[in-house]
Amino acid sequence: MENFTAYNPTKLHFGKNVIEQLPETIASYGQKVLLLTGKGSVKKYGYYDQVVKKLQDAGKTVIEFSGIKPNPTLVDAEKAVQLAQTHQIDFIVALGGGSVIDTAKMVNMAYANDLPVWDIMKHKVEPRLKKSLIAILTLAATGTEMNGAAVLQNHQTQEKIGYFSTLMYPEVSFLDPSYTLTVPKNQTVNGIVDLIAHSLEAFFSGGFAPLSDRFVAANILETMDYAPKLCLDLKNYDLRARMMWTATVAENGTTMHGRTTSGDWGTHALAHHISLLWDTPHGQTLSVVFPAWLKAMSYKIEARIKALGSLLTGEKNISASETILFLEKFFEQIGAPIRFKALGLNERDKQKLLDLWLINRPSGLNIELSPKDYQQIISFL
Amino acid sequence: MENFTAYNPTKLHFGKNVIEQLPETIASYGQKVLLLTGKGSVKKYGYYDQVVKKLQDAGKTVIEFSGIKPNPTLVDAEKAVQLAQTHQIDFIVALGGGSVIDTAKMVNMAYANDLPVWDIMKHKVEPRLKKSLIAILTLAATGTEMNGAAVLQNHQTQEKIGYFSTLMYPEVSFLDPSYTLTVPKNQTVNGIVDLIAHSLEAFFSGGFAPLSDRFVAANILETMDYAPKLCLDLKNYDLRARMMWTATVAENGTTMHGRTTSGDWGTHALAHHISLLWDTPHGQTLSVVFPAWLKAMSYKIEARIKALGSLLTGEKNISASETILFLEKFFEQIGAPIRFKALGLNERDKQKLLDLWLINRPSGLNIELSPKDYQQIISFL
Repeated sequence: MENFTAYNPTKLHFGKNVIEQLPETIASYGQKVLLLTGKGSVKKYGYYDQVVKKLQDAGKTVIEFSGIKPNPTLVDAEKAVQLAQTHQIDFIVALGGGSVIDTAKMVNMAYANDLPVWDIMKHKVEPRLKKSLIAILTLAATGTEMNGAAVLQNHQTQEKIGYFSTLMYPEVSFLDPSYTLTVPKNQTVNGIVDLIAHSLEAFFSGGFAPLSDRFVAANILETMDYAPKLCLDLKNYDLRARMMWTATVAENGTTMHGRTTSGDWGTHALAHHISLLWDTPHGQTLSVVFPAWLKAMSYKIEARIKALGSLLTGEKNISASETILFLEKFFEQIGAPIRFKALGLNERDKQKLLDLWLINRPSGLNIELSPKDYQQIISFL
Repeated sequence: MENFTAYNPTKLHFGKNVIEQLPETIASYGQKVLLLTGKGSVKKYGYYDQVVKKLQDAGKTVIEFSGIKPNPTLVDAEKAVQLAQTHQIDFIVALGGGSVIDTAKMVNMAYANDLPVWDIMKHKVEPRLKKSLIAILTLAATGTEMNGAAVLQNHQTQEKIGYFSTLMYPEVSFLDPSYTLTVPKNQTVNGIVDLIAHSLEAFFSGGFAPLSDRFVAANILETMDYAPKLCLDLKNYDLRARMMWTATVAENGTTMHGRTTSGDWGTHALAHHISLLWDTPHGQTLSVVFPAWLKAMSYKIEARIKALGSLLTGEKNISASETILFLEKFFEQIGAPIRFKALGLNERDKQKLLDLWLINRPSGLNIELSPKDYQQIISFL
């Protein structure tokens, strides 16, 4: 096992009506709050009104920035920073899914330190200060509600990149599974794929971390148990609760302790380019790219893929290809695309994707990717 | 799943030479440190000298309280509080195993709030303040290094009880598996039993928490993998590291989210009485009492025992008695006692134990114990 520091300062309230604890949480936080939201579903379903009322009842002035898109952009983050500066806000509440919370994290860093968002993300400057950030989650998927990471895309430079800082952990997160009962089936499936992919990225980090490996398998097996039922029963609170918690656990450190890197992230880096080119939902890009990446990487990491298969199936002698098939079957079972053409894309689009990979050179933190690997992965898409 | 709050503020540094980070950690903490230690092994093996040097290099004045016993006592805690008061110490460093760190937690509460230790533990008064507490672990077992709990025994009242407060989480913990390379085999076995028992106490809490259940099984299976090897190779760093981390995880919240209570603790409550009467090592009492408790409770919780067995063995149709046998065989394999007479105790001692149970009425938080249950458990000891 590698040396590590286990530390996660987020206080996470999980369950029915946890929003009731919002006023006492923010009592000492200052007067002006920047409220970040997405594209309208929080208003449609009443979560927005509920949260705004709690903020106002607590005597806060709400400055609102809404309309953050599913693949969140640098442009939106910069606009929100301007708004924060104009009103000199005291703390931030992010009400939404991963895109809203990720944006809020970067807005926080840029505003609190008076630094440009992209300079922070490109490690040209380092933030040292933060404002209090509250996350109220309405979509189970990315795990951003209990970690210090954020991903934004920059259409100008054709990049979608992540940033991590211990300053970015939400101070308090509110996870009421009831808030996810209205998530439609396709977004639910995307969230399931995302959390499975996060678990797998952890597994394909380097080093020997047997307990973390078992936790990865536990999280995936739990997901494989509830997910097919949830896809048939979207309004089921208990199944929504199980999904919400596995999504958090997939990315809050639990599966990462003792590894050489905090995940591999090669598959994510590859998949981000599909979103960049065609604005494809993140989850759909992952269920397509992960099987292809596993097939192409089998020459390097066959033993690891087999180890994963053993933990998931209990079969000691499972092969790498059987393991990949096991994952593909699950993705198919919940209706997630596993081939490039299922995204509505064709052979010429594959070439476009390969060209962009060859320019940006996405790679894993643990498993490096060469131009030859890109070609192999493309051939399996 | 039940509502819960996931929150663990301890920053835990794990791995080789993490003690190097002690000086920067305590730089801002004030001048006088109360250093608590146990009965001499930390001095014998040089850990004490290493830590004292780091404290002195950081410019701190060390006030020492040593000699804390394996089943820590109220009397020692009270003496340490007096010492803290006499010297008006600024923060506390606990160097040792669970007994030293548990004592340090209660000393911290009593000193920082000027309240009697036992009054706090009996919930007659409530602490509101704390001093910074650093834990440096030398024995993997109880998990106290990353939680807010402590257990002390009061010989005067014939009680051994636990106390929990969010104020008691160590601020920073240092876990260098090298510090446990000198732990003798019997204490190593006791630690393994303790962490297995903690995992089981979590499992037998109430409510439906399927991911936490899988995490329990993962922690036990990981332990069953390294423990037999470790018992034959006590100086193996990697195996020590695996043990140290499983012991922490067994009791840091990972296995507890979504349950009705924070563990059942019925078996611990029963087993504590054996330590009270004969000063038996905690781990030995647990490997004896857990199988007996499971057998006696099968009439109430057969389905849960079978569910545990399925998760541990992968066999869907395993019976409760096969599950219990599976655990007993593991305890036997590592040389842990599984019957009362292996503790050197006889039939008359069983009666003494039963008498004390009937006076103190130990019970689980989830699974209540009646006098008839006590008799059943005694019959299986």
